[in-house]
Amino acid sequence: MIQQEPICALATATGVGALGVIRVSGTGTFEIVNRLFRGKNLTQVESHTVHFGTIREGATIIDEVLVSVFKSPKSFTKEDTVEISCHGSDYIIRQILKLLVKNGARLARPGEFTQRAFLNGQFDLVQAEAVADLIAADSAASHRTALNQLRGGFSKKLSALREELIHFASLVELELDFGEEDVEFADRDDLRKLIQSLQSTITPLIDSFDFGNALKEGVPVAIIGAPNVGKSTLLNALLNEEKAIVTAIAGTTRDVIEDILYIDGIKFRIIDTAGIRDTDDIVESMGIERSKRAMNQADIVLLLFDGEETYAEVENLAQGLEEEKKVLWVKNKADLTSPNPLLSGEDYPPSPVRRRAGGEVAISAKTGAGIEELKKTLTAMVVTAKTSDDTVVTNMRHYEHLLKTQEALTDALNGLDMGITGDFLAQDIRLALHHLGEITGQIVNDDLLANIFSKFCIGK
Amino acid sequence: MIQQEPICALATATGVGALGVIRVSGTGTFEIVNRLFRGKNLTQVESHTVHFGTIREGATIIDEVLVSVFKSPKSFTKEDTVEISCHGSDYIIRQILKLLVKNGARLARPGEFTQRAFLNGQFDLVQAEAVADLIAADSAASHRTALNQLRGGFSKKLSALREELIHFASLVELELDFGEEDVEFADRDDLRKLIQSLQSTITPLIDSFDFGNALKEGVPVAIIGAPNVGKSTLLNALLNEEKAIVTAIAGTTRDVIEDILYIDGIKFRIIDTAGIRDTDDIVESMGIERSKRAMNQADIVLLLFDGEETYAEVENLAQGLEEEKKVLWVKNKADLTSPNPLLSGEDYPPSPVRRRAGGEVAISAKTGAGIEELKKTLTAMVVTAKTSDDTVVTNMRHYEHLLKTQEALTDALNGLDMGITGDFLAQDIRLALHHLGEITGQIVNDDLLANIFSKFCIGK
Repeated sequence: MIQQEPICALATATGVGALGVIRVSGTGTFEIVNRLFRGKNLTQVESHTVHFGTIREGATIIDEVLVSVFKSPKSFTKEDTVEISCHGSDYIIRQILKLLVKNGARLARPGEFTQRAFLNGQFDLVQAEAVADLIAADSAASHRTALNQLRGGFSKKLSALREELIHFASLVELELDFGEEDVEFADRDDLRKLIQSLQSTITPLIDSFDFGNALKEGVPVAIIGAPNVGKSTLLNALLNEEKAIVTAIAGTTRDVIEDILYIDGIKFRIIDTAGIRDTDDIVESMGIERSKRAMNQADIVLLLFDGEETYAEVENLAQGLEEEKKVLWVKNKADLTSPNPLLSGEDYPPSPVRRRAGGEVAISAKTGAGIEELKKTLTAMVVTAKTSDDTVVTNMRHYEHLLKTQEALTDALNGLDMGITGDFLAQDIRLALHHLGEITGQIVNDDLLANIFSKFCIGK
Repeated sequence: MIQQEPICALATATGVGALGVIRVSGTGTFEIVNRLFRGKNLTQVESHTVHFGTIREGATIIDEVLVSVFKSPKSFTKEDTVEISCHGSDYIIRQILKLLVKNGARLARPGEFTQRAFLNGQFDLVQAEAVADLIAADSAASHRTALNQLRGGFSKKLSALREELIHFASLVELELDFGEEDVEFADRDDLRKLIQSLQSTITPLIDSFDFGNALKEGVPVAIIGAPNVGKSTLLNALLNEEKAIVTAIAGTTRDVIEDILYIDGIKFRIIDTAGIRDTDDIVESMGIERSKRAMNQADIVLLLFDGEETYAEVENLAQGLEEEKKVLWVKNKADLTSPNPLLSGEDYPPSPVRRRAGGEVAISAKTGAGIEELKKTLTAMVVTAKTSDDTVVTNMRHYEHLLKTQEALTDALNGLDMGITGDFLAQDIRLALHHLGEITGQIVNDDLLANIFSKFCIGK
């Protein structure tokens, strides 16, 4: 276990609270805290025990505190660690940190505790990054993904891939040593099968990134419809049903407002838009232009209509919609109107918008009928079969390295088909290994570490 | 020890941090936490130990946590208590609180932990109130006062007073039982001496309130002077010297700005004012009016001049100044001007403003000369002999009860002089005892408690 120089920081959120917790970790931690703590001698107590006492500067009492002792390697950083639980006052926290610095600790850099935990093998880089994601998680789904990563789910998958590849890599490298003799230790057919199997594991991981990223940031959903079709009533029905914490944040354009809605633990960013219709009014046209832009910022578009329109009119709302958007046809006022032919698709020739529709739901935003089904459909559109697995890529860095791994594997596969020599093959495999290794931190460099941990909060 | 129903709350500040601490206290705390904690059985571990494990809802892991166990009566509330140290994410904290509530705890009301500590005799009411003051303390002086109160300094003083009085009260009450026989168990001369001695203890406590309140809120200081005499330069010299945290908050009038300055751990609210001079300009007159109002909102007035003025001109600046204000004459530009006769007071007849002046200091705001002396003088004007004692009243509630105690004692003293009967005397003494008891909480009622603790933050 490496014990580095002692560092200290406030580990809890800043601001007024009943308690604040200051973390100290590194060589000499107990001796440093002993100098300011009047209570038990911390070098002589058991690990994982809590002690009451006072923090003093000379004769002056700064605070009454509880001190928790964690002895190396049984701590988060695997170093000797003390957690000082003091009254949650900015003033007191500042005084205690000052005293710690005066007595030999230095203020920790952002993420430095987690970085030490990583360097001491507490966990790999993916898990370390998951600590930050876990803290930032604001929905059940993003929380589950971060926790799964923290507990090593993703790491295990990557390590398994890497080990298989390393086995073959070593055989191919061995061939290079016997370069003159033209031997093949690595069976080319087996290698092809392995690479294909690796690719079939990596592809869903890569594909999961859009979903993973949506989990972190929230899935943007635009409600599009003619004026007075019930867009606001629908939004309220969705929000009230869930008793969600609703925050209205101003969008990029002044007329587009976002509401946050959690359904089944997934965060949706519902984008309100102005009603769309054909108009000669210049001002209204501008509003409609904005609605159409919002529509294309969304991942999912709810096409809201009330059964008074013709099929062509509804489809007209989605004019200019980008090809890859998921569309859900939602018929409102189902309590008022007769069953609408639109909802039995056979009667109409499939149109482009209709072909890529996620389905059709009949609701009454007013009575709440069908809202449950609408919500189920929405989550189903996000959680598709390929993303049902718990291992979801949420981190841009991981995504990029997975893409590069995939690229190198494709090169290797193409090379195999073209019968390239072992040294070129070895180069591709090495590259794939390198990128896999960078994800988990088996291959690291200082810049990378500095870059990752500097994004953490101080005290973590 | 009374153990009440189990309660839970976040004890650390809200917001994102590395850690959050959730406190659970009351009957069945260990059983409740056991239901969601996968790790050691908390009923079977020692008090003051820390245990790693996971919080689960069924099979779903919510977080990896450290759990600290405090067994009654060895906890803050003197009840069984658990502190759950989890990742500092709002989402996780909400989930764990939900789980705790689902398993039998309820969310704590503001101050409820401290209220239980008080009801279980952990400390008296003054000390409980000091917990809130300690958390809010933002300067060394307010921190020291709150901590002194928390540690029982003020309480001890009050208890001593109360006990002496109770002794005499019982003797006087005894006389009432023998009403017919006209005996005097309580020697009237001794009683008079006791009351006078009590008053001489209470008076400085009452007097300390202004100081105590100033410590909490900051001592308001107005800088008054003619235009261009160097008010802003002085302010900057004061602020820069201290490298203080400077915040500019808009005052009550738009033209008056406050700056916060800490000198020797005392918080000063320096009030900038417009230059004062005789003028016919209506707008300027209004600004000067504002300066004069600011002057009277201050506890200390710095009368700044540069040695070019006559004695009468400087004194004219302080026209309309209320009688009780402390005035400090500050001569600026000491590096430029010759020694000014104003600084050797003998040459001039003492004027009203001069008589109540706190002193005179010569400075150069530009070179920094004399600034140290000015600061020393400022703190000396706040920390006068009568407030040098550590026991300072900072709480309006305490202040009011002390005033009423004093009133009742004065009544008793007057009664003694007029030879009133024992029953009237007993009534005055009982009233004095009542008010002393209300301060420390020896006499309490539910409304009072609810009122005091509702001002606390939740989790405290």
